[in-house]
Amino acid sequence: MKIIVFGGDGFCGWPTSLHLASLGHEILIIDNQSRRKIDDDLGSNSLTAISSVEDRIKAANDLVGSIQYTNLDIALDVQELRESIQNFDPDSVVHFAEQRAAPYSMISDTHRRYTIDNNTTATHNICSAVADINPDIHIVHLGTMGVYGYSKEFGNIPEGYLDVKINQTSKDVDILYPANPGSIYHLTKCIDQLIFQFYKKNWNLNFTDLHQGIVWGINTDQTKKDSRLVNRFDYDGVYGTVLNRFLSQAANGHPLTVYGVGGQARAFIHISDTAKCVQLALENANSDNNRVRIFNQVSEVKTVMELAEIVSGIYGTEINMVENPRKELAENELEVSNQGLRSLGFEPITLDSGLLEDVKALAENAETFNKNNVLSSPKW
Amino acid sequence: MKIIVFGGDGFCGWPTSLHLASLGHEILIIDNQSRRKIDDDLGSNSLTAISSVEDRIKAANDLVGSIQYTNLDIALDVQELRESIQNFDPDSVVHFAEQRAAPYSMISDTHRRYTIDNNTTATHNICSAVADINPDIHIVHLGTMGVYGYSKEFGNIPEGYLDVKINQTSKDVDILYPANPGSIYHLTKCIDQLIFQFYKKNWNLNFTDLHQGIVWGINTDQTKKDSRLVNRFDYDGVYGTVLNRFLSQAANGHPLTVYGVGGQARAFIHISDTAKCVQLALENANSDNNRVRIFNQVSEVKTVMELAEIVSGIYGTEINMVENPRKELAENELEVSNQGLRSLGFEPITLDSGLLEDVKALAENAETFNKNNVLSSPKW
Repeated sequence: MKIIVFGGDGFCGWPTSLHLASLGHEILIIDNQSRRKIDDDLGSNSLTAISSVEDRIKAANDLVGSIQYTNLDIALDVQELRESIQNFDPDSVVHFAEQRAAPYSMISDTHRRYTIDNNTTATHNICSAVADINPDIHIVHLGTMGVYGYSKEFGNIPEGYLDVKINQTSKDVDILYPANPGSIYHLTKCIDQLIFQFYKKNWNLNFTDLHQGIVWGINTDQTKKDSRLVNRFDYDGVYGTVLNRFLSQAANGHPLTVYGVGGQARAFIHISDTAKCVQLALENANSDNNRVRIFNQVSEVKTVMELAEIVSGIYGTEINMVENPRKELAENELEVSNQGLRSLGFEPITLDSGLLEDVKALAENAETFNKNNVLSSPKW
Repeated sequence: MKIIVFGGDGFCGWPTSLHLASLGHEILIIDNQSRRKIDDDLGSNSLTAISSVEDRIKAANDLVGSIQYTNLDIALDVQELRESIQNFDPDSVVHFAEQRAAPYSMISDTHRRYTIDNNTTATHNICSAVADINPDIHIVHLGTMGVYGYSKEFGNIPEGYLDVKINQTSKDVDILYPANPGSIYHLTKCIDQLIFQFYKKNWNLNFTDLHQGIVWGINTDQTKKDSRLVNRFDYDGVYGTVLNRFLSQAANGHPLTVYGVGGQARAFIHISDTAKCVQLALENANSDNNRVRIFNQVSEVKTVMELAEIVSGIYGTEINMVENPRKELAENELEVSNQGLRSLGFEPITLDSGLLEDVKALAENAETFNKNNVLSSPKW
């Protein structure tokens, strides 16, 4: 299969590109290296030493499979985006090319506007180009569990659509789950859903939206192969997800910082499973012709305190409860369906089985740890 | 009250600004004259001879009330937007500054992208600026009935929120009416709703979203006062709304072009009532502190064929049924609540009482009619 991976230099995009290439798919990465530039702006760094895009691509072609690379900004360089799709003629595209940190999107007016403008325009530019060039291209998009909000207000979290009775008519219908974002970043993924829904309705484009949980972990089978293939690992208060922050704090002898009482229940997934789920979505055609296919890309649900206790159990690290900088429920219950991907063969890596390997890998990168980065979370 | 009117040089914005100024409110119009530029691009024209912004503003200050004017693009000139809000220090803002023609938004990739980018960014820039500068500013926004779609699938159209039972939990809740846009333009108004919902939730901004029907009519009490105050009147296939197209066709001896069988039921409102409803929203504070206030700004429901027959009855014009260029239901029923604005005192002008006056006013502008413009509708 020929696949364009938008945002293929990023945290999820890079291991996904490697995984797909390792299976013999022909990959074109389109990326503007925005994530690397944001590191410069924030003064943050990946704990792992990541290679330049050029070195990555060279090593991937030597050791893994066929990956080409084009540097362009799909929100701004529309003509080049269209030419790339026309020339590469993909069967599918995977869209990771969005600013993906909730805390970053809440820092200031500038960051709010960048996130809204970049994400909405990037998503829409892809849809509009595909509608003109080849409506059969399968568009696979990384959504987020955050579109649902984190509550049991409507019961267990279904996959994208909620079964309700319209009280006026007494008819049962499936509606798109009512959007309940918790940050500007999450809002953009709710906006994306509306864009997909309309491009499905009017141009019959073929979409799979993957509402992913919080990603943890460092290595995949491919990133382990060579130091030039290593994936980024964010542990700062802006881009570092909660388990990765805990792991890097513990590995470096610092107490784990839990926001509030740590009662926030969230869904998690290992980075290797991100790549595998995207593969499953790509290789199994969408059989629902009437609507956008939506899967929850998650493995298991834990509370933040449960995570802290697992990490503390391995390292013997203290747990520090600090004031929660975010507007969110102090505690919530969460139950999430992942039957869609399960039915396609997804067998999740769980924290119990996978965490020790990541702990070992982290020890090799301890020297680049910067204690100040991990605490630098914006308040909202 | 000090009020900024974004898009105050446009079809709805200009008579609304005049109406508010006539009541003693202090108005600042912010507009980039995009609607005038689009006329140049499309080779279309207003049937009425509209004055330059500068002449309009001068006449308004001489004859109506206090209106200032600043030329800026709120999607691009963010710093100037913020300074304008800071310096003018408004109690309220009214947001008309969006590309507002469904057919225009469906012409091509370029027009789709312009509509998405301009409308989403403009709306978000206002919200983000208000959140920083003064969260008490009341933001009144012109939405559209098109966010609901045009069907009785969920029964009568309520005002913004739909009463449903969540089948998993058997609980009754009000949810934002599931978005069902019929064009990229309508999609942007659905996106706006999500932006408002999040800015309400996180920053407690104060919003009224007015889901307006299709506007008809030419004059308001203020635009009649002086030739320099006259409002634009679009009759082309892109910007002209259906009744205005019929009126200009009939006044110029051309058959009325009905799309399909004319069974599309739509909600209508006179341009004078647009201005009055915005006034009612501004002068009556939002008493619902928990959510965005949503009103349907409509007067009555008619089918397209009913409109054609009314106009044909006045002029004796033939009715021509042509292939519908749009993806929409051939026929639909529609019942719409307008209790919110009614409860604030809204008494609509109906077609029966108001149409003859517009017919007379049209006769004075017949010489600028261009038959080709009225037929130039894009297909989707």
